[in-house]
Amino acid sequence: MGRFGEATAVERAGDGRYQADLDQGFGFAEALNGGYLMAVLARAAVDASPHDHPISTAASFLRVAKPGPAEVLVEPRKSGRTAAMSRVTLVQAGEPVVDALITTGTLETGLEPHWTGEAPPAMPAPDECSTFASGKDDRGFADNVEMLFDPATMGWLDGQPSGRLEARAWFRLPGYGNDGCALALAVDALPPVVLNVGAKGWAPTVELTWHMRAVPAPGRLAVHGGGRLVAGGWFDEEVEVWDSAGRLVAQSRQLARVGRGLT
Amino acid sequence: MGRFGEATAVERAGDGRYQADLDQGFGFAEALNGGYLMAVLARAAVDASPHDHPISTAASFLRVAKPGPAEVLVEPRKSGRTAAMSRVTLVQAGEPVVDALITTGTLETGLEPHWTGEAPPAMPAPDECSTFASGKDDRGFADNVEMLFDPATMGWLDGQPSGRLEARAWFRLPGYGNDGCALALAVDALPPVVLNVGAKGWAPTVELTWHMRAVPAPGRLAVHGGGRLVAGGWFDEEVEVWDSAGRLVAQSRQLARVGRGLT
Repeated sequence: MGRFGEATAVERAGDGRYQADLDQGFGFAEALNGGYLMAVLARAAVDASPHDHPISTAASFLRVAKPGPAEVLVEPRKSGRTAAMSRVTLVQAGEPVVDALITTGTLETGLEPHWTGEAPPAMPAPDECSTFASGKDDRGFADNVEMLFDPATMGWLDGQPSGRLEARAWFRLPGYGNDGCALALAVDALPPVVLNVGAKGWAPTVELTWHMRAVPAPGRLAVHGGGRLVAGGWFDEEVEVWDSAGRLVAQSRQLARVGRGLT
Repeated sequence: MGRFGEATAVERAGDGRYQADLDQGFGFAEALNGGYLMAVLARAAVDASPHDHPISTAASFLRVAKPGPAEVLVEPRKSGRTAAMSRVTLVQAGEPVVDALITTGTLETGLEPHWTGEAPPAMPAPDECSTFASGKDDRGFADNVEMLFDPATMGWLDGQPSGRLEARAWFRLPGYGNDGCALALAVDALPPVVLNVGAKGWAPTVELTWHMRAVPAPGRLAVHGGGRLVAGGWFDEEVEVWDSAGRLVAQSRQLARVGRGLT
């Protein structure tokens, strides 16, 4: 099941209580990735639900999560034929770290949409994209999540930000298929879009809501990030994830803080 | 303070407990409006917070709210200099009706954005728009919320839906200024965008997340609704609210169910 499967495993430890062991392999120096934490929450929420998929997740990031033991508390709030809702919390050292509202449901595989908006412009082919992976170890996010970045959105690396809130990449988890947990990671895996309008460094997520819209087909996922406004130290980042069959499979928006100021 | 101010008033009844009296004047036959309920939750969350504005609200709609007494429970989870987070629940008859995660913060009035995306195309002037108000009574939503609809998005009324997920209107609350509570209502005040791709009737919201991005200037608000996908009975609705000074003041996405099927 690959490192991602192991890193997001949860063990039932009682009524609505799950044990997890958070893996530095899905973190950066500053913190574990928020999408990774949402994947852990989704796994527990789906286990506790009669449904198969994390249809909707709203997460409020209270504190920085650390590698090591954590507990996931799932509190069912309503269960119906179409959907079930729960309040889910990630706890470490006796303190809530992430609060979430998760709605589970069951999506049919291969479902044809009734209506769909235009797909975003195609990205460059994977072999025309760039990577952060060192290839030398498996200690950090860039070595455990295969991301191939659209060079048009990576100018900030060389001091030439594109001037728009944007980031785009191909996404694949080595040794792990595409499912709801993979999508939870995909919607928060891009470099912060605000790097392309002059921000520097880490941009802590305050709130992120994402919806799983279809069961993703196998293959690389195209992850398209944008945003609308940077003001007062806050910015929004919208992500759409499209699968290899050309379907919109996930969509998200996060509200985050500009980390170390703007130039 | 107008009927909206009275209808969203909350009275502190103890530590983190507030009493409200929900007003049918902000409902339809089927249910009270979800934006109205979020406004009530925002008022309680801001009262319990050191900050002034409901920066981010994620709401999970569990049950239909009824006019009459309700309780709002506010549970502080983290309080910082920039933001404070809480879990907030609307309770009626002993049952949770809406679960929310609310982040409060304080936005500076008249703040200039660092970067902003393109404004949506201008709407027709208010006197070229249409209304639902009967002018005869004040019993329902259409008589207490002044909405002037862009006719290009109202074809579904005459059996000629536009074929895109869209709805647009001018918004104003009689006797009440523009603030965070007004924005909570504005992001859920449009007719469901899915009416324009052949859906009929009410479309129950399952989850709605909205962000307050600026303190709105006085005057009518332009409310622009769109969406990306209708599949498996689910659709998304995105709303942007722009104020009379040309600023993006709120943005939302909801995930909802297609009510009575599609044609």
